[in-house]
Amino acid sequence: MSGTVVMKFGGTSVADSARIKRAAARIVSRREEGARVVVVLSARGKETDRLIAAALEVSDQPDPREMDMLLSTGERVSCALCAMAINDLGHRAISLTGSQAGIVTDTSHTKARILDVRADRIRAGLEEDRIVLVAGFQGVSTTKDVTTLGRGGSDTTAVALAAAVGADVCEIYTDVAGVFSADPRIVPDARKLDLVSFDEMLEMSASGAGVLQLRSVEYARNHGVRIHCRSSFQDASGTIVVPPEEIVEQPLITAVTHSTGEARVTLKGVPDTPGIAGRVTTALAVANVNIDMIIQNEPVSGGRLADMSFTIPKDEVAEARGALASIRDEFDIEILTDDGMGKVSIVGAGMKSHPGVAAKVFTTLGDQGINIEMISTSPIRISCVVPVDRVPDAVRALHAAFELSGPDTIRPEQPFGEFA
Amino acid sequence: MSGTVVMKFGGTSVADSARIKRAAARIVSRREEGARVVVVLSARGKETDRLIAAALEVSDQPDPREMDMLLSTGERVSCALCAMAINDLGHRAISLTGSQAGIVTDTSHTKARILDVRADRIRAGLEEDRIVLVAGFQGVSTTKDVTTLGRGGSDTTAVALAAAVGADVCEIYTDVAGVFSADPRIVPDARKLDLVSFDEMLEMSASGAGVLQLRSVEYARNHGVRIHCRSSFQDASGTIVVPPEEIVEQPLITAVTHSTGEARVTLKGVPDTPGIAGRVTTALAVANVNIDMIIQNEPVSGGRLADMSFTIPKDEVAEARGALASIRDEFDIEILTDDGMGKVSIVGAGMKSHPGVAAKVFTTLGDQGINIEMISTSPIRISCVVPVDRVPDAVRALHAAFELSGPDTIRPEQPFGEFA
Repeated sequence: MSGTVVMKFGGTSVADSARIKRAAARIVSRREEGARVVVVLSARGKETDRLIAAALEVSDQPDPREMDMLLSTGERVSCALCAMAINDLGHRAISLTGSQAGIVTDTSHTKARILDVRADRIRAGLEEDRIVLVAGFQGVSTTKDVTTLGRGGSDTTAVALAAAVGADVCEIYTDVAGVFSADPRIVPDARKLDLVSFDEMLEMSASGAGVLQLRSVEYARNHGVRIHCRSSFQDASGTIVVPPEEIVEQPLITAVTHSTGEARVTLKGVPDTPGIAGRVTTALAVANVNIDMIIQNEPVSGGRLADMSFTIPKDEVAEARGALASIRDEFDIEILTDDGMGKVSIVGAGMKSHPGVAAKVFTTLGDQGINIEMISTSPIRISCVVPVDRVPDAVRALHAAFELSGPDTIRPEQPFGEFA
Repeated sequence: MSGTVVMKFGGTSVADSARIKRAAARIVSRREEGARVVVVLSARGKETDRLIAAALEVSDQPDPREMDMLLSTGERVSCALCAMAINDLGHRAISLTGSQAGIVTDTSHTKARILDVRADRIRAGLEEDRIVLVAGFQGVSTTKDVTTLGRGGSDTTAVALAAAVGADVCEIYTDVAGVFSADPRIVPDARKLDLVSFDEMLEMSASGAGVLQLRSVEYARNHGVRIHCRSSFQDASGTIVVPPEEIVEQPLITAVTHSTGEARVTLKGVPDTPGIAGRVTTALAVANVNIDMIIQNEPVSGGRLADMSFTIPKDEVAEARGALASIRDEFDIEILTDDGMGKVSIVGAGMKSHPGVAAKVFTTLGDQGINIEMISTSPIRISCVVPVDRVPDAVRALHAAFELSGPDTIRPEQPFGEFA
């Protein structure tokens, strides 16, 4: 194999000098197999948290532009150290900042989006037979300021570079062995998935599978970049995320995902006036509150009042209440919140052609005595909001009902730290 | 005063969040006096040492290019944090990397020299009524790599920016109150100097006054930049370094400086052959050994052998012996070293027009029973190598002999940490 590969290592994989040397050895062995290698690194261990804490010590509301200048240093440190370690192994490495690597973003500091990748320096480095290391999570804006892509942005950097240099694969190294049919901490016989389609992976990332960032999967789908999600600690193959047409036999259900930390907000007595739902969602969007499901009941007969419920991350409840205060007062609406919610989802491209999946989900949860508070669906996903303390039971019951266990089940020596 | 001022703060002045806030307040008050303000910051406290230690954990001989990528992050962190603190005080700040500030250097990684300062972004920031913070100690090479200027390079950054933006003054804030007529730790009644000429300051920095970096003084002299060396902790005026023509009444002697940690190397039995001294000094230069004084004795009558002595920093003795090994073997030379040497110097532009200064120096030291091992002079400096344990006596004796104490003597509350 003599193509180009992008290898991305997360913060735990470069947390100390021993791990950096191990990553360097892994990178060098990939190079010695014949591949041209581009590496993307995250900041070391808790470095980003340390920098954020330093910022909050000097300012209650740190300026976003300066926050980016601050945080972008973490990945640069990782890259410089790893380049030194690779050079010591007799290979030639060069580290590049996001800016030097040509990652051009918009000007939305702390959550910038990639506009363009001008990978000339990367290509030049590869032509000179170098291993090219790029600081993840960052770029340079159209106004030449340092930007960051938001938490988990290094995955997006890796996929964007893979697209730009035409890499055969983007390898994401983590401390889990791949993507599983459920969280192995909850379902010990969860199966490692060999292949997952982009669309399924998108739904899984959006509904709680923490192993790959949603944005990086979107970017991969849009640019046709194959992602190989694999363990930093083992040589075994992990999970490959590919275009749907490459998956010959589509399973009915691929995985059960879940999330905890959800809150339900209910607005009681909303007048049946056009535009109120729009005002509510706009107010929440302005306050950066992420709404997931929304349900609006019909007004009760005779009255002109309706109830409206939605789910949000539970640590955004205070912001939501603040954002809705003026609407509440104007229309005399009562706001109720319940932050003891969780969500369980089943994802599978096969359900499009198989009726009855939803019925089986509701029956399975009902048999367990689990109350379904809210439901939302997409063509390849069904999600149910349930009490957070019943989430593990719900995951296990659905995993069993759809017979997702298999021969390739998890082995006890594999760590699960990042699968949350 | 409505001109432009460059303010430079060292690592101890930004070591923690309290000090960053204090520096921010000082910067803001300077702005509120009406000046347009450019700030240069060093890395926080021990940050550079921490990064160097991390590099040595992953590599015995870290690649210089990667070392620069690594070390340059320290000053960026300082600048971003200080910009946040200034923004919180209601002013608008912007931090720039050395590269963004337009500091273009050669490609000598870890000890780059400034080739050009393209200060367009700094000027644009000032035009927008911003306080512009620049990461010290770093630049971008002609091949677009991050470079660093070597230890103490932030002083040079500050002076270079002052020259580029036509600042009225470059203020260097340190933890001492200015430049003194001698190290106050040795001479308690040493006088703070109000004015010092560039030429005197150059000689003082070169002969042991640690308060200003030699390179920054050279740059200031070449570009006519006034330096105001003052305390971070007090409002009082410090020492202003100016062109010689601005000093109306030139004192005979301005200061006594000293250094410890010198070693003398003596080559015994050097054949009186042309070119040997050149080979010795070339070998030492290649090994990066810094030679200070050199003395060559005449060959003893009848014989054809001479002795050659020079001084070097005592921590470079091993390198010097290694560099001279082949010459030693080729000519059967004996190499003696003595690392118990120190140096005491008197500096003063007035000595040019006053004969008898050297005689007074030798008499004064002789009266103290201090043996002078070697002597070197410039038009405005006389330096004597003496046993290191007699350096304090020599400094006190010369300070008294030339009557350098004065009314403006040191006050006990002033710290002297950087005066070494």
